[in-house]
Amino acid sequence: MVEEKDLSMMVDLYELTMAQAYWSEGMEEPATFSLFFRKMPRHRNFVLACGQQQVAHIIESLRFSQEHIDRLRELDMFEPDFLDWLRRFRFSGSIHALPEGTPVFPQEPLLEVEAPIAEAQLLESLIMNYVHLESVLASKAARLVQAAGDRPVVDFGMRRMHGLDAAYRGVRAFRIAGLSGTSNVLAGLDFDLPIRGTMAHSFVQACDDEMAAFRTYARLYPGTTLLVDTYDTEKAVQDIIRWMKDSPDVDIGAIRLDSGDLAELAFSCRKMLDEAGYKDIKIMASSGLDEYKIARLREQGAPLDGFGVGTAVGASNDAPALELAYKLTEYAGKPRMKNSPGKQSFPGRKQVYRQQDTDGNYTRDIITHRDESAEGTPLLVPTLWAGRAVEGAIASLDDATAASREAVSRLPERLRQLDEAEDYQVTISERLQKLQSRTLESLGVKHS
Amino acid sequence: MVEEKDLSMMVDLYELTMAQAYWSEGMEEPATFSLFFRKMPRHRNFVLACGQQQVAHIIESLRFSQEHIDRLRELDMFEPDFLDWLRRFRFSGSIHALPEGTPVFPQEPLLEVEAPIAEAQLLESLIMNYVHLESVLASKAARLVQAAGDRPVVDFGMRRMHGLDAAYRGVRAFRIAGLSGTSNVLAGLDFDLPIRGTMAHSFVQACDDEMAAFRTYARLYPGTTLLVDTYDTEKAVQDIIRWMKDSPDVDIGAIRLDSGDLAELAFSCRKMLDEAGYKDIKIMASSGLDEYKIARLREQGAPLDGFGVGTAVGASNDAPALELAYKLTEYAGKPRMKNSPGKQSFPGRKQVYRQQDTDGNYTRDIITHRDESAEGTPLLVPTLWAGRAVEGAIASLDDATAASREAVSRLPERLRQLDEAEDYQVTISERLQKLQSRTLESLGVKHS
Repeated sequence: MVEEKDLSMMVDLYELTMAQAYWSEGMEEPATFSLFFRKMPRHRNFVLACGQQQVAHIIESLRFSQEHIDRLRELDMFEPDFLDWLRRFRFSGSIHALPEGTPVFPQEPLLEVEAPIAEAQLLESLIMNYVHLESVLASKAARLVQAAGDRPVVDFGMRRMHGLDAAYRGVRAFRIAGLSGTSNVLAGLDFDLPIRGTMAHSFVQACDDEMAAFRTYARLYPGTTLLVDTYDTEKAVQDIIRWMKDSPDVDIGAIRLDSGDLAELAFSCRKMLDEAGYKDIKIMASSGLDEYKIARLREQGAPLDGFGVGTAVGASNDAPALELAYKLTEYAGKPRMKNSPGKQSFPGRKQVYRQQDTDGNYTRDIITHRDESAEGTPLLVPTLWAGRAVEGAIASLDDATAASREAVSRLPERLRQLDEAEDYQVTISERLQKLQSRTLESLGVKHS
Repeated sequence: MVEEKDLSMMVDLYELTMAQAYWSEGMEEPATFSLFFRKMPRHRNFVLACGQQQVAHIIESLRFSQEHIDRLRELDMFEPDFLDWLRRFRFSGSIHALPEGTPVFPQEPLLEVEAPIAEAQLLESLIMNYVHLESVLASKAARLVQAAGDRPVVDFGMRRMHGLDAAYRGVRAFRIAGLSGTSNVLAGLDFDLPIRGTMAHSFVQACDDEMAAFRTYARLYPGTTLLVDTYDTEKAVQDIIRWMKDSPDVDIGAIRLDSGDLAELAFSCRKMLDEAGYKDIKIMASSGLDEYKIARLREQGAPLDGFGVGTAVGASNDAPALELAYKLTEYAGKPRMKNSPGKQSFPGRKQVYRQQDTDGNYTRDIITHRDESAEGTPLLVPTLWAGRAVEGAIASLDDATAASREAVSRLPERLRQLDEAEDYQVTISERLQKLQSRTLESLGVKHS
């Protein structure tokens, strides 16, 4: 496990060697680094940016302990005075970031770091890893929410997620993206998302027979959900109905289908329950669900009241990575960019303005220089200033969740579909375009 | 962050509710749970099982603190006496597991847990999450190692991995699977994998010009690798050659190509370096590499001496999840299984025997009942016994890495190719097959 006290050491070696090089050359001017992606991941119409505000809390408390310094000394690459600099390191810069849960598009900064260059460079991999996880998972979860419409989607993903930090902070992302619950006890408690769970097949198998398992659960957990597919789904539902008829005090909230043809079983179980007078008993589905299967079940009109989703949401299985980049865009007051084929970026500190029509729906974004103004709402706000998290700038989870739902609802209809749609319109301001041309020219001159 | 003291709370709610149900019903008999997968993930010819031995250390120290108990009490689902039981929880059972880095196939247990049923059930999601991460990442890394042949592959993945636990423990998996280095400082130190790094484009951009950046690095880090594609790769290499001619003391170990046509650039840069007499300077490549691109570069004969791989290995991008299952196979001395469509499993405690031909190459596996013997080497060994990790059973990382390389080399040639190959032969022993039939019959009788 990585403990919080060791987060400063979650750094790629080159960030330390570059920091020493800046330090050694006396390069202490402020730099701006921008976190963005160049193109939309496949199967996504928007990315739901998450973690980019919260990471401020990690950064403001980042320290190199004496133990860390001693371990770095053993690498035999760092001068004693630089190790002293690291020992005294406190991030002194600022961060501007999008609100948690903001839909974001290619080239738009999720956050920008401004600090003396060595400080900003040191944070590269930690910030990227932190924001990558939550943004990848929230973007997938948002699709499940869209597919399920008004039906709740519950995270069952812990077991197939990439380690414990993913399983834990993933729930934060799922909550912001609109999932209704999680099976994960610690994360559900910490991120205040309802904790849900039923029973596993193992419980049914361990009991003398299926009905014994159901009776025990009904006694211990009134309103419980019974897993009915261990042996024979329809027979289990018949048995439950017979039992409820005999024992009117029994309180069953729902049944869960976890294998077979979910639509067909949902229809037949619904019919059995309704005909027996149990219209209030809900039917939940799980079993390898993803947004496409949920959409199909809903198209079929399957009478399902909620969905448990594991692997698909937990691993963002169809787009498990987002090609986030953390690029220097300004140093010592001068715009910077690289000229590598296919990897050109826009120099300078930036802002994103989101424009709305008269109904409040989003129409397009303009990426501008930070000092420009444009029509629309500026999205990047300071979350860290002079090394300290900005009071009130980082929304509560409740507010982030509400704001994210609102923002997604204002996106063009086509982007909320599961199929890949025409891109959202993102314009680069004239000033930024000119700045790029001039910067390219200056590089050309220098290197011709 | 999830801290080590809170690992007991990384549990799915249903594991706690089932545990209380077992406790409440006085179901204290020993159970066996088996961790396995039903089919090979796409794009994989074998899974490299990792983490299944190491998890013993987590389990032996798992505790519910008073703070945990207080938080669980607030859920209003658990009886005081059960919460006392949890407070006193110490895992008292045993675990048999495959050696770290063992190639494993469908239906074969990666590990089996035997314990009073409530204890074994509580561990479900934690064990699955723990083993899933490392096995998914090691399985991907093994393909990169195969593709690169004798050339080193270095992990650059931290920034695009799923959170910090993945970035950290991933390096353990990468090491066992045969990667040669990592950029991740903390994980490299803790798991004793060489830590590698060069410079980012930002460093070149921040310096007055490219050569100033190279000079600083060469002075600080003799034998360093220079990133040459920030502006114009071939021009940068010409500049470096001119500089080395003028300054014979300069010690450059390698250049790194990170964009453009890597094969073409490798040929042209190699030619320039060779003609100038710098045959010892190596050429490394990065830039969205995966096993297919590496294989293609090698087919083209591109003179590349090593590969840095990020997203592909870090997120196992083409197969980010493994459908691990943790299933009850025996309780109170009786075999157990479920009968859900497409999800039938084999009951009983198991062993896997791996058979070899006279050259030592693997020919097939037999999955048997644990009490059976068969030809071949039994793979599952006890790693935890009566709640304590078995001294010497969990291999050192060096031994695990060597054993894993050896094991992979003994697999049939076709399985070590990148394309999907005919399955490795895995046989179910007659006794296990009969046990399954009898168990199915007994379920049929009970439920007809």
